[in-house]
Amino acid sequence: MSDLRSKFLEVYSVLKSELLNDPAFEFTDVSRQWVDRMLNYNVPGGKLNRGLSVIDSLKLLKDGRELTDDEIFHASALGWCIEWLQAYFLVLDDIMDSSHTRRGQPCWFRLPKIGMIAVNDGILLRNHIPRVLKKHFRGKPYYVNLLDLFNEVEFQTAHGQLIDLITTHEGEKDLSKYSLALHRRIVQYKTAYYSFYLPVACALLMAGEDLESHVDVKNILIEMGTYFQVQDDYLDCFGDPEVIGKVGTDIQDFKCSWLVVKALELSNEEQKKLLHTNYGKDDQTCIEKVKELYKVLDIQGVFLEYESSSYQKLTKSIESHSSKAVQAVLKSFLAKIYKRQK
Amino acid sequence: MSDLRSKFLEVYSVLKSELLNDPAFEFTDVSRQWVDRMLNYNVPGGKLNRGLSVIDSLKLLKDGRELTDDEIFHASALGWCIEWLQAYFLVLDDIMDSSHTRRGQPCWFRLPKIGMIAVNDGILLRNHIPRVLKKHFRGKPYYVNLLDLFNEVEFQTAHGQLIDLITTHEGEKDLSKYSLALHRRIVQYKTAYYSFYLPVACALLMAGEDLESHVDVKNILIEMGTYFQVQDDYLDCFGDPEVIGKVGTDIQDFKCSWLVVKALELSNEEQKKLLHTNYGKDDQTCIEKVKELYKVLDIQGVFLEYESSSYQKLTKSIESHSSKAVQAVLKSFLAKIYKRQK
Repeated sequence: MSDLRSKFLEVYSVLKSELLNDPAFEFTDVSRQWVDRMLNYNVPGGKLNRGLSVIDSLKLLKDGRELTDDEIFHASALGWCIEWLQAYFLVLDDIMDSSHTRRGQPCWFRLPKIGMIAVNDGILLRNHIPRVLKKHFRGKPYYVNLLDLFNEVEFQTAHGQLIDLITTHEGEKDLSKYSLALHRRIVQYKTAYYSFYLPVACALLMAGEDLESHVDVKNILIEMGTYFQVQDDYLDCFGDPEVIGKVGTDIQDFKCSWLVVKALELSNEEQKKLLHTNYGKDDQTCIEKVKELYKVLDIQGVFLEYESSSYQKLTKSIESHSSKAVQAVLKSFLAKIYKRQK
Repeated sequence: MSDLRSKFLEVYSVLKSELLNDPAFEFTDVSRQWVDRMLNYNVPGGKLNRGLSVIDSLKLLKDGRELTDDEIFHASALGWCIEWLQAYFLVLDDIMDSSHTRRGQPCWFRLPKIGMIAVNDGILLRNHIPRVLKKHFRGKPYYVNLLDLFNEVEFQTAHGQLIDLITTHEGEKDLSKYSLALHRRIVQYKTAYYSFYLPVACALLMAGEDLESHVDVKNILIEMGTYFQVQDDYLDCFGDPEVIGKVGTDIQDFKCSWLVVKALELSNEEQKKLLHTNYGKDDQTCIEKVKELYKVLDIQGVFLEYESSSYQKLTKSIESHSSKAVQAVLKSFLAKIYKRQK
C-alpha cells in the first residue's frame, strides 16, 4: 500500500513536468515557476483517497490480478486528474468562504502576493485536467467518454456548490429553508459525484465498460457519498478535534448540516425557536445552546441509527449486484468509510 | 445582417432554456432563477462579434451559398459557446482586477447579494459549454475535436491571463519587465486564440476540415488578433471616449500596453526615467506627463505606421493561401477591424 502510494506520487512528478513544458503555451521562467509552486502547494497535500481509489478499483475490476506498469500509470494519471479537480474546487471554495486554513496550512489565496490571482490559479488547475487526458488517453477508445465524464461531474459539483452558496450565504439567515431534501441535494451534487462516483467511473472506463449500463453502480456510490458527508457533519460537532485535525465550525457558519436538519425535524415549537435564535451566531453561548439541544434530542443516537441502517441498505444493494468484481469495488469503498472517526 | 443577429439571439433563448432544464442536475426554483438571471446579465450583452463570426465564416467556407436552418442553428450554438467562454473570462477577470463596470453596467460581482458567489457563477458559465456541445454535437464526427479545441484555447487563454496578472500585479511596479516580446506573448495567448482563431476553427470543423492542416490559418489569425489588441491599446489612450464607450485607464493601471512598450523602446535615458516615475500612478499630473511623452515620441505616428505595415503583411499572407474560400474568411475578419475607431 505504501509502495502504491509512492508509485502514485511519482506519477505526480511526471504529470507536473509535462504540464510545465506543454507546447500549447510558451512559458516564461517566472510563469513556469509560479505554476510549479502553485501545484506543489495545492495538489498533492491531501489524503489522496480519491486518486488512489482509481487504482484500487481497477485492480478489483480485473478480479484482483496484478496490474501492469502501464495500467498503474494510466490509473494513477486519472487518479491525479481527480486530485487536480479537488484542488481546483478547494482553491476557489476557500476564496468564496473566506477561509483561513486548508490541510493545516494557510489557504493559497492568503499567501503574500497571491490574493485574487488565486482565482486564475484555480482555472489553471481545472485546465490541466484535459491536457493530461489528451496527452495520455487521446488514442484510447474511451477518450471521448472520459471527457464527457469529467465535464458532467464538474457540472454537477459546481451546481451543488451553487445551491450550497445561495442557501448558506444569500439574504438573511433563515433556517426554515433547511430540510433533509435540500441537504441531500447539496451533498449529492457537491460531494458524492466527484468523490465517490468519479473514481469508480474512471476505473470502469479503463476496464472497457460503458457507463450507461452501470447506473445502479452510480446510484449506490451516490448513496455512499451521502452517507460519507453525513458522517462529516457528525464529526464536525462530535468528532475528536485531535483526531479529525480541526475544530468544527458548522454551527456558527450556519451550515446546512445533517445535524441541524435532523434537529429541526425532531424539535417542538419551542426548540425550533431556540435553533432559529442561536444557529449561525459566532458566539460561544449560542453554540453551547445548540449543542445542548442536540443532546436533549439525542442527535448522536439518531446518527448511530442512521449509520447502521445506511450500512445495511448499502450492503444489501451491493450484494444484489450481478458482478462479483463490481461488488468487491463497492464493498472496499464502504469498508473504508464505515464507522470512520476521521 | 440584423436578421442573422435576431436568429442568433433566438438560439440563445433555446440554449438557455435547455441549460436550465438539464437533467444532469435537479434545479430548485431558486437556483434555476439564479442561473437564468446570471446568464441574462453576463452572456448576451456584448457586441457578439465573436459569436456571429462563426456563422459568417461557415458561409464563406461554403463558397457563399445560403446555409440551411440546421447549419445556422449549429453555427450559432458554437458562436454562443464562444460568447459563454468570453462571459466566463470577463466575470472572473473583473473580480481579479477589482473592476467596477463592464459593458456599461456594474460588474456582476458588484451587485448586492452576489459578491464572491460570482466566482462560482464564472465556473457555471464555463461548465455550460460542454453541455451545449454534448447536446448538439455528440453525434458529429468532429465532436471530440471540438472538445479538444475548446480545451486547448481555454488553456491558452488562462495562461495568457497568468502572465498578464503576474507582470502587472506581482511585486513592485517595475517597467523594466515590459518588452515587445512580453506584450506579444500576453496578447497572443490572452486574446488572439479565443477571439480570432476559435471562431474560424469552429467553422472549419463544421465544414469538415481538420485543424492540423490549417496551421497557416491559425498563424494568420493570431497575427490579426495581435494587431487587434494593439489597436485596443491605442484606442485606450487616443480613442474618443464617446465612441469607444469608456475612458481609458491603462496608464494608471500600469498595463503592459503596446504604447508604453513602444515608448520605452524609443526613449532616451531621461525619458525612460520619466516613464518609470509616472507610469502606473493614479494621479492626473503623472498621467499627463506620460501622454506628453507619447506626443513627443510621436507614438501616434508609430502606431499608424504599424497599422499599415500590419495590414500589408496580413493581406500578403492571406493572398498566398491556396483556398479562395479560406481567403474570403480571413479577408472578412481583416476588413472588420482595419482602421476601426471602436
